[in-house]
Amino acid sequence: MNTIITIGRKFGSRGREIGRKVAEYYSIPFYDKDLITRAAKESGFCEEMIEVHDERPTSSFLYNLVMDTYSFGYNSSSFIDMPISHKIFLAQFDTIKKVAMEGPCVIVGRCADYALAERDDVLNLFIYGDEQARIESIAKRYELSMDKARDMVNKKDKQRSSYYNYYTSKKWGRADSYNLCLDSSLFGIEGTVKLIIQTVDDLEQIRKA
Amino acid sequence: MNTIITIGRKFGSRGREIGRKVAEYYSIPFYDKDLITRAAKESGFCEEMIEVHDERPTSSFLYNLVMDTYSFGYNSSSFIDMPISHKIFLAQFDTIKKVAMEGPCVIVGRCADYALAERDDVLNLFIYGDEQARIESIAKRYELSMDKARDMVNKKDKQRSSYYNYYTSKKWGRADSYNLCLDSSLFGIEGTVKLIIQTVDDLEQIRKA
Repeated sequence: MNTIITIGRKFGSRGREIGRKVAEYYSIPFYDKDLITRAAKESGFCEEMIEVHDERPTSSFLYNLVMDTYSFGYNSSSFIDMPISHKIFLAQFDTIKKVAMEGPCVIVGRCADYALAERDDVLNLFIYGDEQARIESIAKRYELSMDKARDMVNKKDKQRSSYYNYYTSKKWGRADSYNLCLDSSLFGIEGTVKLIIQTVDDLEQIRKA
Repeated sequence: MNTIITIGRKFGSRGREIGRKVAEYYSIPFYDKDLITRAAKESGFCEEMIEVHDERPTSSFLYNLVMDTYSFGYNSSSFIDMPISHKIFLAQFDTIKKVAMEGPCVIVGRCADYALAERDDVLNLFIYGDEQARIESIAKRYELSMDKARDMVNKKDKQRSSYYNYYTSKKWGRADSYNLCLDSSLFGIEGTVKLIIQTVDDLEQIRKA
């Protein structure tokens, strides 16, 4: 098995759980929040700082305004000028590239598809599901009322979408930003895992040919 | 095999060819432009009239303007008041429902997923592909320059998107409007067909259980 699998996912779609099961099946590393620890070690940022900015939209409007004004005088925007959120994005971006160089793995979220765009051994997935099913799943997992769970789902998806759309040249949740998109509320967790494994196995045959 | 398969597709992604092969595999009917002839027979509209309006956006802005003005006086908008494009949409919509009642089949385009939303034996697919691959495919198929092919791809996708977004409550090309979205430029035609067949077979097991 030689494929790096990236997984974008809607909140409550069980994308993380599905990714972990795929990684277990192939006995390959699984990266999710673990990327934070690794990026912290490699970049020198503390874990808490990375966690605060992890998959959160940057306040890009204000940043751009400040940078544009600044550039009028100096015409430069180096790493030093960069807001912390951008620096942390770049640190995670580098860590994702390093992790991929170590061999096949599953990486969840964090624009991994974009970080690895130049490799030809990647399969980019997006996992979503019926909104009601996702809200129910979150209500159960966090012991919330349906209203609170709905708010949480909407807020999280908005954050992930803003983060992805800001840092990549693609659109979060649009089919053609990925290679395969799966509705986990229809196929179920085991069914989705099975389809992904079939796809990876087929793809490796196609790429060998 | 008991599943009705609907296929939305980006222009040049070979979605039609893929759908036909899936229908051949299962020996079930395949509907594409054929829906036009059938809708013509059943609705009384002539085929040419349906073809002109097939998957084309309606001039909804003007229509709504006229209808709103009209309603001020009469407060009614019956089938008689409706512009021809809407009547034809409804005729195709009815034909899709009838066709589905006859048993498993493959239906390409024409908002079939939306027309069949209330059935529980449907699998909704979206097929897309790398933009450059789609342009090359269209340039070859219609013997066009790459520039002309690019224009045609953009125009057709825009038309399909406007049509779908106007008549359904979903967004064309957004992953969560479908159950499974496949990048045919990565998997190839045969590879995409194989994945769809695996998905249908798995789904029938899941639905039986």
